[in-house]
Amino acid sequence: MKTGIIGASGYSGETLVRLLAKHPQAQLSVVTSRKLAGTPLSTVIPYLRGVMDELTFTDSKVEELIESDVDVFFLALPHGVSTEFAVPLVNAGKTVIDLSADFRLYSAALYKEYYGHEHPCPEWLTKAPYLIPELMQNAEWMQRKLIACAGCYPTSILTPLVPLLRAGLLDARGIVISSCSGVSGGGKKADEYYGYSERTQSMVAYAAPKHRHLSEIEEQLSFAHGGNVTVQFLPHLAPMRAGIESTIVAKANGTLDQLYAAWNAQYGDKPFVSVLPSKTFPDTKYVVGSNRVDISAVYDERTGNFVINSAIDNLIKGASGQAIQIMNLMHGFDEKAGLI
Amino acid sequence: MKTGIIGASGYSGETLVRLLAKHPQAQLSVVTSRKLAGTPLSTVIPYLRGVMDELTFTDSKVEELIESDVDVFFLALPHGVSTEFAVPLVNAGKTVIDLSADFRLYSAALYKEYYGHEHPCPEWLTKAPYLIPELMQNAEWMQRKLIACAGCYPTSILTPLVPLLRAGLLDARGIVISSCSGVSGGGKKADEYYGYSERTQSMVAYAAPKHRHLSEIEEQLSFAHGGNVTVQFLPHLAPMRAGIESTIVAKANGTLDQLYAAWNAQYGDKPFVSVLPSKTFPDTKYVVGSNRVDISAVYDERTGNFVINSAIDNLIKGASGQAIQIMNLMHGFDEKAGLI
Amino acid sequence: MKTGIIGASGYSGETLVRLLAKHPQAQLSVVTSRKLAGTPLSTVIPYLRGVMDELTFTDSKVEELIESDVDVFFLALPHGVSTEFAVPLVNAGKTVIDLSADFRLYSAALYKEYYGHEHPCPEWLTKAPYLIPELMQNAEWMQRKLIACAGCYPTSILTPLVPLLRAGLLDARGIVISSCSGVSGGGKKADEYYGYSERTQSMVAYAAPKHRHLSEIEEQLSFAHGGNVTVQFLPHLAPMRAGIESTIVAKANGTLDQLYAAWNAQYGDKPFVSVLPSKTFPDTKYVVGSNRVDISAVYDERTGNFVINSAIDNLIKGASGQAIQIMNLMHGFDEKAGLI
Amino acid sequence: MKTGIIGASGYSGETLVRLLAKHPQAQLSVVTSRKLAGTPLSTVIPYLRGVMDELTFTDSKVEELIESDVDVFFLALPHGVSTEFAVPLVNAGKTVIDLSADFRLYSAALYKEYYGHEHPCPEWLTKAPYLIPELMQNAEWMQRKLIACAGCYPTSILTPLVPLLRAGLLDARGIVISSCSGVSGGGKKADEYYGYSERTQSMVAYAAPKHRHLSEIEEQLSFAHGGNVTVQFLPHLAPMRAGIESTIVAKANGTLDQLYAAWNAQYGDKPFVSVLPSKTFPDTKYVVGSNRVDISAVYDERTGNFVINSAIDNLIKGASGQAIQIMNLMHGFDEKAGLI
Repeated sequence: MKTGIIGASGYSGETLVRLLAKHPQAQLSVVTSRKLAGTPLSTVIPYLRGVMDELTFTDSKVEELIESDVDVFFLALPHGVSTEFAVPLVNAGKTVIDLSADFRLYSAALYKEYYGHEHPCPEWLTKAPYLIPELMQNAEWMQRKLIACAGCYPTSILTPLVPLLRAGLLDARGIVISSCSGVSGGGKKADEYYGYSERTQSMVAYAAPKHRHLSEIEEQLSFAHGGNVTVQFLPHLAPMRAGIESTIVAKANGTLDQLYAAWNAQYGDKPFVSVLPSKTFPDTKYVVGSNRVDISAVYDERTGNFVINSAIDNLIKGASGQAIQIMNLMHGFDEKAGLI
Repeated sequence: MKTGIIGASGYSGETLVRLLAKHPQAQLSVVTSRKLAGTPLSTVIPYLRGVMDELTFTDSKVEELIESDVDVFFLALPHGVSTEFAVPLVNAGKTVIDLSADFRLYSAALYKEYYGHEHPCPEWLTKAPYLIPELMQNAEWMQRKLIACAGCYPTSILTPLVPLLRAGLLDARGIVISSCSGVSGGGKKADEYYGYSERTQSMVAYAAPKHRHLSEIEEQLSFAHGGNVTVQFLPHLAPMRAGIESTIVAKANGTLDQLYAAWNAQYGDKPFVSVLPSKTFPDTKYVVGSNRVDISAVYDERTGNFVINSAIDNLIKGASGQAIQIMNLMHGFDEKAGLI
Repeated sequence: MKTGIIGASGYSGETLVRLLAKHPQAQLSVVTSRKLAGTPLSTVIPYLRGVMDELTFTDSKVEELIESDVDVFFLALPHGVSTEFAVPLVNAGKTVIDLSADFRLYSAALYKEYYGHEHPCPEWLTKAPYLIPELMQNAEWMQRKLIACAGCYPTSILTPLVPLLRAGLLDARGIVISSCSGVSGGGKKADEYYGYSERTQSMVAYAAPKHRHLSEIEEQLSFAHGGNVTVQFLPHLAPMRAGIESTIVAKANGTLDQLYAAWNAQYGDKPFVSVLPSKTFPDTKYVVGSNRVDISAVYDERTGNFVINSAIDNLIKGASGQAIQIMNLMHGFDEKAGLI
Repeated sequence: MKTGIIGASGYSGETLVRLLAKHPQAQLSVVTSRKLAGTPLSTVIPYLRGVMDELTFTDSKVEELIESDVDVFFLALPHGVSTEFAVPLVNAGKTVIDLSADFRLYSAALYKEYYGHEHPCPEWLTKAPYLIPELMQNAEWMQRKLIACAGCYPTSILTPLVPLLRAGLLDARGIVISSCSGVSGGGKKADEYYGYSERTQSMVAYAAPKHRHLSEIEEQLSFAHGGNVTVQFLPHLAPMRAGIESTIVAKANGTLDQLYAAWNAQYGDKPFVSVLPSKTFPDTKYVVGSNRVDISAVYDERTGNFVINSAIDNLIKGASGQAIQIMNLMHGFDEKAGLI
């Protein structure tokens, strides 16, 4: 099967290339980047030396992409630009897996509130399923042509929380989420703030109280709960390259055994979610480089709260790995293909 | 004035030596360490090369320390060992500033709950004031001979919270505190877990839900509130050498202006607390190396919560710098002496 | 084919397990560690969660290993201990790929000079080929039962230098080699010196002028040159987890074109050696996680020297990846199997 | 005494401000930056919170600076821009300590070779002394008005080498120097290459064989030797914020005792040069934050070489600290004022 990546100059794009380079079934046949057009991939992504030496970035127009023999396109474009490619490609019968935020919300009003302008084609918002594969309740989404990959923070948060809200094991009011992300979450860009000398040895909160990812977190939690959920989401930048650690506090509406039972029911047969014993805290270093989500929980009898922790690789399970997992499932490949 | 450090082989001891080496009034005349006895300080603490080349670690017994001409002793001993030195030194008329946890609690019952055994001399618990200088309500503590320096996490948490609880600006129920500490917080020791290869690129929670520092945090918050306060305290280890960042969520019982007014009233003239504008988030990199606490807050109208952030250097304001600040105040030196 | 790892508690052992876990032909059936016996592998090596959950560390005696159906044993034991396992296993017909230094030297006298004692079975020194696969001049070694994997620093140094010395393109006198290794090169151990707080932000030379790896470097360079070669080898510890960067200065005995021609002749068809253009300097970050060696060179007309740079992952191409590459070649698997 | 900093938006400028903020005699009265004009210093350099809250960046023209009551100007401008300020200020009677490379060379031809254009006022090259205070052979330089601070790499290299070349203890031919610099050496700028995600865990050579600093290194070594010296200089970027470690190989022309005697004669009474015992290797972590140079050496009887190591803080002894040390000496202050 032939795949293409649109907009591969950033970290998600680079990670997609690296993962697809070793995928047993998917062949990478076009990789575009306006600014890198004409450059061999292995010059920009030296990890590919000896692995994929032949491919070159192109500046293909959407018409050329439509006429190509590529089946599945991954969009690793900046938010707002994806739509320009996604809609014509899907209309032309291609499958599109979008890593941007363009189609992650269901509500056009919420989109406007968080992104500051009307969505250019709001009719697509309800047609593009929001995707963390482990959380889908049936396989209907596999028939869709446009898929919205969940964001990195949301994946780390929704994976542990959604099964618990569905099972009614949490009080949906007063949830507090503190997340720490590696610096690559800020993207690959020329910016003093993301310079090595600025970020090393620096731990800092940012964007409180209304980070953009809050919109998809709350919309999805509300769907799981069956009613409005408002949370306190507190992102931080940590002095590491990759990884997200999320620590979540929620009032318990059940026992720790019930919590673990709900998780085991949901994830027992899922290769990419590891349910760790209580008091074994997920560590970013054990998930970075993998497509895994590690989750665990403790119950605090003093406060009546569950404390839930998770860890993912923001560029893999939080972006490119998840996109490939989605492709694997849609096309009947082994779910793990290219991912271990 | 002559000073001594008992148990200077760890990071707090080393930091004390470095700070005292450049103090204009305090002279460091004895530094003990059982395991380093006989070694020149500048061999073990090479930062002292050219600054303090003459001093050597000793293995002085408490009797020798009593007979020495040292006025102020800093105890940088492991928890549980401090008492053996503190009590005889104080009884002999020396001033003791203890950096361990031995005298940080007021309640002997709480001590037993968190430390697993009876306190060896519980009568001293109520006599040793718990010290963050900026929070003291009068100068009576300066007459005491035994001082319990506040711990590192507690300093980062109590500095922003105590004035707000005293002013009734927070709902004391349901406070959630997530803190990230640099690895030096784990001490200077031979332990695989604290190895560079293990901790670099690792972000991980630990010790939830009942870290030992919770005891002093809750006891002090309860005093400030005038009633029991139970909090959710969530410590993390971050991949950096020094620094603590704390993010605190509390239901607002007043406006953001009132919050800032309470902070400005408390800290307006305090050189080591910087009240930053709302949405300027304290960053560990700007406080590491200093004795400063940076604090700021935002109000989230969606949740009705204040989100409060702070940052300190765990080894300076969270330990050795605070100890020297205490000495400065007790002895009428400039509060900043040796600390900038 | 069944494989086993003897002594898998360190970083090389852990890396072997991770690589074998995804190897398409080799099955990992026994993993020993005296101190971890009885513990599931995925507890100690959490990267294995969801990948290899069933295996447990054993404390198998050499007799049990001989009787097992394992074909190939990897020894990831401390130097000096390997011999106790290697010799009986080989005598019993097993294939042994040794990652320790026990069989890396040809000369028993050199062994004694560098390791301070007689080699326990010097007759084996000449029977165990010293292995960087790309440098072998014929396939005779594939018939041997005991293989000595080259060390990490030596792999980074011999890969670029050996073809040039064989071709007479370097003056063998006066070679200077400065290498920087990640901290994992010091092993996984409880040691204050390797603590995060000690090694972060620290760049330091060590072990000059006679690091143990010098013995194998000089012995192999002498074989390539056809005469004694004495070099200045200068190892450093750099503040990173993995990777070795080597910078080598040698008087040129030919042109830069000839140097590149010699490299291209040797490595043109080798998947794990990337010959980079002059002035593209090998960077550890592009080889860490891979089994690749990146090499490049510049000619300095002012000094008449070649400046040669290389980069490898010390735990992969410098240890475990190379061991698996050797196994692949010996058993007719794809050279890259399990390694990309 | 009043001081000013011209061009303080980079790391050298920031470090100058921090050091001057705690200087007992020098008062900082003007700090310019075109891009930051109007901003309070403590906003951009938050380390100043509570230390220096009042000063604001200005965009003062050179005429205003001439009319001000400032005595000493530090120029922390990009190379090439310094001249525009230095010459008029000096002509107006001000003292100028220049941290750029504009006046570091004596030879106008060498300047042209390395910087690609004629020097705009070559007559000043021979009038501005090249300054590492510990290496000056008399006090005549203190009368000059324009001082060229030595660069960071050169300070780490010349400090150990110059006394040895003057004493004839080294063969001046064939010297090899490998240096590793922290990332702040690349300056404070928006550049993907210097991003945290690019530089963490990365060790890489660059700019070989003809880095710009080579010009001042060789010119100064040639003066010390009394004849042309050509060296192999090999700079590297190491994954740390600050610090330079240099490892130097030179053929011995004397004994290790003679080497140490030459160093002790030169540096015995110098507070900022620490001569460490042989085999105690200088570590960047012990000099970062200080104005110290640590040096040591070993003799390798196998090669006949001295291996010499040094470590400095690139922003302090390699730039701003050295500039203040120079000011202290010129104005009769304690050499250490503001520097410990």
